[in-house]
Amino acid sequence: MHHQIPASYQSLLKHPELIVVGAGIGDPELLTIKGLKALQQADVVLYDALVNEALLQHAPADAIRIYVGKRRGKKSHTQPEINELIVDCARAFGKVVRLKGGDPFVFGRGMEELQYAQEQGLEVSYIPGVSSAIAAPGLAGIPVTLRGASRGFWVLTATTDTGELNPEIYEVARTNATAVVLMGLAKLPEITEAFAQNGKPELPVAIIQNASLPQQRTLVGRVSDIAEKAALSGIGSPAVIVVGEVVGRLLNSTRLLHHKTFTP
Amino acid sequence: MHHQIPASYQSLLKHPELIVVGAGIGDPELLTIKGLKALQQADVVLYDALVNEALLQHAPADAIRIYVGKRRGKKSHTQPEINELIVDCARAFGKVVRLKGGDPFVFGRGMEELQYAQEQGLEVSYIPGVSSAIAAPGLAGIPVTLRGASRGFWVLTATTDTGELNPEIYEVARTNATAVVLMGLAKLPEITEAFAQNGKPELPVAIIQNASLPQQRTLVGRVSDIAEKAALSGIGSPAVIVVGEVVGRLLNSTRLLHHKTFTP
Repeated sequence: MHHQIPASYQSLLKHPELIVVGAGIGDPELLTIKGLKALQQADVVLYDALVNEALLQHAPADAIRIYVGKRRGKKSHTQPEINELIVDCARAFGKVVRLKGGDPFVFGRGMEELQYAQEQGLEVSYIPGVSSAIAAPGLAGIPVTLRGASRGFWVLTATTDTGELNPEIYEVARTNATAVVLMGLAKLPEITEAFAQNGKPELPVAIIQNASLPQQRTLVGRVSDIAEKAALSGIGSPAVIVVGEVVGRLLNSTRLLHHKTFTP
Repeated sequence: MHHQIPASYQSLLKHPELIVVGAGIGDPELLTIKGLKALQQADVVLYDALVNEALLQHAPADAIRIYVGKRRGKKSHTQPEINELIVDCARAFGKVVRLKGGDPFVFGRGMEELQYAQEQGLEVSYIPGVSSAIAAPGLAGIPVTLRGASRGFWVLTATTDTGELNPEIYEVARTNATAVVLMGLAKLPEITEAFAQNGKPELPVAIIQNASLPQQRTLVGRVSDIAEKAALSGIGSPAVIVVGEVVGRLLNSTRLLHHKTFTP
């Protein structure tokens, strides 16, 4: 005998689904409308350290919230554990929203999670987010591209998986691209050394910490002195490093584009 | 005699202000919450060709809407005209929201407008947006970074101000960065030639047209054949070109991350 599920019960069945959502950078209003709507429908929210917890209020009151970022500098979950958690949560509860700082595909391992979930039979989708690679410089008054100063920008991490300096730092130092280095503060002396070796000691550099938050802070210098300035200033993570002429063109406006909240 | 403006009249005074807002890419739900709130308070909205006109509904009914993009392939306003229009509108009406496709600082000339407005005494601010440089590949199932395939991505235009091939195309072809070329379809044969000259005829390439819209379309090939495929397929602008191993790793999933609308 063939059983059909009555239509009235179908809404009770959990359809296992993963939506990887870019949460944007610090300011919770930098989430997209699409990301907001996904959160409002979430059965489970998994979120990282760099996600502003104010975003969690958009999820339904009975949605399950799970923090999977670092605790005391150590990862609370390995990547395989997160992958399993996503699949288990989707099967048990339905719609899993995976909130990641910035955009999930910019050093976010978003694709790894989507691929694993898809292999396990989940419906998957991706909602892009505002990336710190572009927005952090911008909020400090530094455009990553500018007519007459830059025809492109190269976004890279400072380290390899094993913690060494990313060899592409030497490559970007040879080009005229604006260099945007994420998660790079600990390697700042090596990064600036790569530019100095290419005859660019005077090239302007900016470090932007906590972009878009009220405590946003910008430090500006040159390849030759920014590492010392950073050490003296105590500037810390999360921070974005920008190296290029676009920094120098706009020194006068770095204090003029401020974080601002609109209250309608 | 010194006149003070009565408090009851102060709200009638127009405070000249420019907010440059990233509208995100095609899907109007890819606007940020902050961008939405700015639009809801606008006295004047100036918008470009690549901005989805559905966004204009968020502005107040009596807000002035001015299109400053291209008409029949020609610019309807020069950049100095747009700069003047912004200042004139802000002085006459108050809050000007300048909506630009993607993020205003990625080849958007957002900084030029902000600087001019600031020199003329306007209050200025910037609200970042989702950029097609990251989101268009992502929505086609291609992450701009991926462990084991890419430690960075280089975003560039295909042409200089005078319409020649951007010489940085030759530089990016020598590196291991994922190359993301915006507004480059007309230069596709020259772009692929640059990679072929560097011994990379087999490197995978993707072209993503109308990312995030229902008519989103992706064409995948290699440096050696993508120009011919593109010509045969009739794929057109607006399009983003991605060259790099990240395209090849993910051919199987390019149809699996689709545009999706959430209706709460």
